[in-house]
Parts: sequence; C-alpha cells; structure tokens
Amino acid sequence: MSLHGTYDPDNIFAKIIRGEMPAVKVFEDDQVLCFMDVFPQARGHMLVISRTSKARNLLEAEAKTLGRLIGATQKAAAAVTAALKPDGVIVTQFNGAPAGQTVFHLHFHVIPRYEGEAMGRHAEGMADVEELKVLAEKIAAAL
Amino acid sequence: MSLHGTYDPDNIFAKIIRGEMPAVKVFEDDQVLCFMDVFPQARGHMLVISRTSKARNLLEAEAKTLGRLIGATQKAAAAVTAALKPDGVIVTQFNGAPAGQTVFHLHFHVIPRYEGEAMGRHAEGMADVEELKVLAEKIAAAL
Repeated sequence: MSLHGTYDPDNIFAKIIRGEMPAVKVFEDDQVLCFMDVFPQARGHMLVISRTSKARNLLEAEAKTLGRLIGATQKAAAAVTAALKPDGVIVTQFNGAPAGQTVFHLHFHVIPRYEGEAMGRHAEGMADVEELKVLAEKIAAAL
Repeated sequence: MSLHGTYDPDNIFAKIIRGEMPAVKVFEDDQVLCFMDVFPQARGHMLVISRTSKARNLLEAEAKTLGRLIGATQKAAAAVTAALKPDGVIVTQFNGAPAGQTVFHLHFHVIPRYEGEAMGRHAEGMADVEELKVLAEKIAAAL
C-alpha cells in the first residue's frame, strides 16, 4: 500500500509552487494555489493545491490544510460555474497510483461537466496554453 | 444550470438522518454521518454527509460544514485504508445531475481502489445489506 511515503520535493506541483515550472494560474494566496490542468478532462478543468503542506495525499493532510483546500475548491467551483456555465461540476481527489494519482502532492480536481459532452480521460492530450490562459482569465474574472 | 435550487427535505439522505430510512452506518456524531453506499462501486464504498446542513451541493455549503465534511472524509479514507488494505482511495463529489449527482444533499464518496479490479458503475446493483454490515464493522473497528 503506497498511501504512506516520503514527499518528493521535485514533484511537478512543488516546482510550480517554487516558480521553477510554469502554470496557468487562476488564483492564489500564501496558502493555496488554483491553476489550469494542462491535461484537461473538460473545458475549465482546474487543480487546487496547498502551497505549504507536504502532504502527498488526503491521509497525510493536516486539518488546517484540508479546510483551506476544500474552501479553495469551493471557490474554484463557484467561479467556473459563473464563468463557463457548465451543467454540473465534479470534484475528485485521488490517493495512490492505483486510484489514478500521478503527482504525489495532495490536489483536488475541479472538472466542469457539460451536458451531451463526454468527459475526456486524464492525460489524453495536452491543452493549448494560450487557450488555457483565456479560460483562466474568464474564471478569475468571476471570482 | 441546476446548481442552485431548493433543498428537498424528503431526499433519501434527509430521511436517513431523521431515521426514517435505514442505513449501514460506519460512524457519526452530531454533525456528520458516514455510511455504506448501497450501490457500491467497490468494496468499502462509503458516503459522508452533514447531519445539519441543507446544502444541496458544494456551492451551497457553509465553510464550517465543508471543514467538518472533509475532515470526516479523511477519517473514513484512513479507516477503510487500515481495514480493507486497498491500493488506493478515490474521493469524488458530484454537483448537479449532469455531473452524476442523484441525491441533492451534499455528499462525498470515499471509494477504495483495488489493483486489477475495475471500478463498478454507480447504481449498477444493490449490495447485500448483511455484507455491508460486515464491511462497516471492519472499517469502524479501524477508526
């Protein structure tokens, strides 16, 4: 069971937090960061992470971190709902590689659902960064 | 967009909270309730709900409610991990019917993942209640 382990400070999200990797940000403060998933399963797919916690997954997260993350997830869901008018929103959070986790820094997915549109598989294709920037601006404007 | 609406006090979860419908409970306190999903997508699939909030979905939830729910979700995930030794755990939360929401009382799914076992579709088949009771006892014992 791989749900307990050592945090890898060189995972992609850690690099994004340190500014060593680019990300199309939607909002951030000193505790949380919300940015566009570059392998979106739907238009407006975002990720919400803690900037400070070294939790790899839900089981390792401190109560304060969790509270902030779910608050930011709610904020992201509300903004994308206002901005892109999806018919629904799915929130997912994967723990462990067999559950679909690919980056071992705790994160929540916020995925808009549009009626009549099937949800794509994660990592199916990389999004155009310029398109993501337009979406992120729209969503941020609805915050 | 159906993400805003009126809470139906006769939804199934409201009835479970009032004791008008049975549920195989894993743990509860005065604020939250964790019980077995009767249409499990995997062995040990649980639902976590607020006993007090009238939020239909994530967008309507009060910050306190959200904090308690994600805390209880973490607790459920830890217990099922200890009890059933899955290879991973998925947390999902659906908002709006097009996103897969069927009961309009905010809830989090906690779904263990077992390597080599495909996850079932929700509402594919109703579980045997006696089997759910055995699982719930195992999980509760690991709390």
